[in-house]
Amino acid sequence: MADVPDGEQGCGSPLELFNSIAAQGQLVRSLKAGSASKDEIDSAVKLLLALKMSYKTATGEDYKADCPPGNPAPGGDCGLDATEEGEDFVDPWTVQTSSAKGIDYDKLIVRFGSSKIDKELIDRIERAIGQKPHRFLRRGIFFSHRDMSQILDAYENKKPFYLYTGRGPSSEAMHVGHLIPFIFTKWLQDVFNVPLVIQMTDDEKYLWKDLTLDQAYGYAVENAKDIIACGFDINKTFIFSDLDYMGMSPGFYKNVVKIQKHVTFNQVKGIFGFSDSDCIGKISFPAIQAAPSFSNSFPQIFRDQTDVQCLIPCAIDQDPYFRMTRDVAPRIGYPKPALLHSTFFPALQGAQTKMSASDPNSSIFLTDTAKQIKTKVNKHAFSGGRDTVEEHRQLGGNCDVDVSFMYLTFFLEDDDKLEQIRKDYTSGALLTGELKKTLIEVLQPLIAEHQARRKEVTDEIVKEFMTPRKLSYDFQ
Amino acid sequence: MADVPDGEQGCGSPLELFNSIAAQGQLVRSLKAGSASKDEIDSAVKLLLALKMSYKTATGEDYKADCPPGNPAPGGDCGLDATEEGEDFVDPWTVQTSSAKGIDYDKLIVRFGSSKIDKELIDRIERAIGQKPHRFLRRGIFFSHRDMSQILDAYENKKPFYLYTGRGPSSEAMHVGHLIPFIFTKWLQDVFNVPLVIQMTDDEKYLWKDLTLDQAYGYAVENAKDIIACGFDINKTFIFSDLDYMGMSPGFYKNVVKIQKHVTFNQVKGIFGFSDSDCIGKISFPAIQAAPSFSNSFPQIFRDQTDVQCLIPCAIDQDPYFRMTRDVAPRIGYPKPALLHSTFFPALQGAQTKMSASDPNSSIFLTDTAKQIKTKVNKHAFSGGRDTVEEHRQLGGNCDVDVSFMYLTFFLEDDDKLEQIRKDYTSGALLTGELKKTLIEVLQPLIAEHQARRKEVTDEIVKEFMTPRKLSYDFQ
Repeated sequence: MADVPDGEQGCGSPLELFNSIAAQGQLVRSLKAGSASKDEIDSAVKLLLALKMSYKTATGEDYKADCPPGNPAPGGDCGLDATEEGEDFVDPWTVQTSSAKGIDYDKLIVRFGSSKIDKELIDRIERAIGQKPHRFLRRGIFFSHRDMSQILDAYENKKPFYLYTGRGPSSEAMHVGHLIPFIFTKWLQDVFNVPLVIQMTDDEKYLWKDLTLDQAYGYAVENAKDIIACGFDINKTFIFSDLDYMGMSPGFYKNVVKIQKHVTFNQVKGIFGFSDSDCIGKISFPAIQAAPSFSNSFPQIFRDQTDVQCLIPCAIDQDPYFRMTRDVAPRIGYPKPALLHSTFFPALQGAQTKMSASDPNSSIFLTDTAKQIKTKVNKHAFSGGRDTVEEHRQLGGNCDVDVSFMYLTFFLEDDDKLEQIRKDYTSGALLTGELKKTLIEVLQPLIAEHQARRKEVTDEIVKEFMTPRKLSYDFQ
Repeated sequence: MADVPDGEQGCGSPLELFNSIAAQGQLVRSLKAGSASKDEIDSAVKLLLALKMSYKTATGEDYKADCPPGNPAPGGDCGLDATEEGEDFVDPWTVQTSSAKGIDYDKLIVRFGSSKIDKELIDRIERAIGQKPHRFLRRGIFFSHRDMSQILDAYENKKPFYLYTGRGPSSEAMHVGHLIPFIFTKWLQDVFNVPLVIQMTDDEKYLWKDLTLDQAYGYAVENAKDIIACGFDINKTFIFSDLDYMGMSPGFYKNVVKIQKHVTFNQVKGIFGFSDSDCIGKISFPAIQAAPSFSNSFPQIFRDQTDVQCLIPCAIDQDPYFRMTRDVAPRIGYPKPALLHSTFFPALQGAQTKMSASDPNSSIFLTDTAKQIKTKVNKHAFSGGRDTVEEHRQLGGNCDVDVSFMYLTFFLEDDDKLEQIRKDYTSGALLTGELKKTLIEVLQPLIAEHQARRKEVTDEIVKEFMTPRKLSYDFQ
């Protein structure tokens, strides 16, 4: 399966009807979930039914989600609606699961059509870089990829590639979860010694949120400070705000328009669930997140080279953007970007709940004091332990749902120590309070050191990172 | 009536259904007109019927074009479908009429909700500028406007305003008809002494046509030479290619995103007839044509002033873009642009046929030689004369359908001479050959002089016109 089909079929075709039904179904669900009036829901349902009827008339078959016309699945797989209750839901704006263990990532790999990062690939990375792979790789936090072997081929053949990642600056407040892709990207930059571009999608946040342009741009600059504090090499890293860079680059808009010519509304409706009442800014935005995947969007770095391969480390909810990008790339003469996908960072309250910038207790924020960290972990981190010490000693705790343990898998570097904690907690030898104490002792210096590094990030440093310029990228 | 309604209603509302039906209807018509297969047409018709059924269920009324839900027209006007056969059709890509006299412009004013340029307004312009109004005003070639009186208020109160017009560079070949808005705009610039911005929508042409980015940009530069040859003041005129300027301006993209946030797909579907299988570039393009209506899209000219009023002279087929712009303007804190609308320039074969850059005989091109002009007018200009000289002498000719006479109304400056020709041709005193000879004698020097001026336009001059820079615009 893999990439998104072309979708250039006329309106009114079975595929078009299929897509309309899918989009309308999603709308009905969101109306029901939201505060829509009964009338609104009713008329949306009516349209849904009319569309389903048209579909049956056109194809002679009942509409089945996940089973586009012309794709009968003899195995009967097409009885499954991925967004039905009980199933996980993942797109760039919503991550939903009902399991305390979090999203079922193996299923997600199958549904998204990506590849698992298996032992063989990790071993190959280790051989290529001559270093121990990052703990995020060792522990399956970066768990899925697309075309990573091509990147390794390029690297082994001394061909250049570059890294691209990004952030949607929706507020000033960033939490530790936001750092995951950046911590990993910094490691990739170090071990592969390659240039990196970081997109701040302030235009996206302006379009999606109740923000002014100035606010969105202000958040982009503030967030850039936290990103810079991760330790990126100023000689190899370009950070840009879309609102700013679009008006400064001779190459960026040209690629945006190229992509926009090759993606239909049907396609973005199918991929992102946009509806007819979405603003045209949202509808065309995916092209803006796609464009940095192509090296000539950055003529100051790559001059007119269109074929420098791109590797995108990101959380897997961003994959829809890059499925679209990979579909478009060969049609506009560019290489497809490769991807490394991470799992989601769980909220303190458990992997099935959502972290929220407006709820300070849902995560550890980068501005938290040592005391706040201690209190949050002790009070709010969902525990897989037992109700009483006696029970815990006897039956042991459950690491699969314990948020403190999950956080340690992200941040405790020592594999042996982590394994010991897992064993001891599972056996009941380690109590919840002791587990939490270990986490607090890991997080407090981590956040304090981040804060110290962020303090060093002056306005001048931010300005330099955000200035379009040549980067040093002699491939070694 | 006037501007486009907000339309921020949810999908599935009666208005949403109404808009979907309108768009689907347009699709069915275009499928029928084009080379679509029977299956394609059938399934599009089926969806149309399903939508109409949903509409009736939702509103209790049959769908009637031009009669949106909640707008019952007691006069019964809503029985009229503007796009039914026999009616004129006008949008930025299609101008259709079955009448040899051309579009019924009085009806168009009513349908678009603009105002007629009447004698009172022309007299006021004459008083304001202290000069005879341009023949395009005297003869109803610029026949419709929006808020021109506000521009005159501003002018009389010594408040600044600026002009904005544009061209879609679809090929190198421009014909005399393409010059109409530019001839008039140059006159406006002279008499009001104001700055002017000219948008070359090369991105639009890339999106709509089978062109590469380089081709579209190349046409923009070539067309700019013909535009410059109209005599614009280099100190007061900025010509820009979208593909170029987007990457050079700190203000343009910000306004584009602002507009894109405030226009839904439903709205552009209703206004422009876009369908779900259109690319997202087309869908978001209207914001790019809208943005130059706001002065802070040009910080190099207007600095951060957001309230310099804009006057747009254009052919009336461009009005849908600016209805949308005028709807958005107050919601993003900007003044609405004012407009002056021209009629269409007729093809040589008659006002009901289409000029085409690929048919050299459909118009007089700016590259035609004196001989070509003579041959084209004599051979191809549709005549309102009689079959024989005897009949013509006896019954007279028909100026209303005679293309040579129409062209003279555009290009013959002398009102008395034009009126004498009209009288003589109508009475039969003037023969078709004589009428054509007069036209040829007007066109030959006009084109030759244009060619001479175009030759003077060096690459350096084009470059200067197209460089973002301060313009001299001290208001007098």
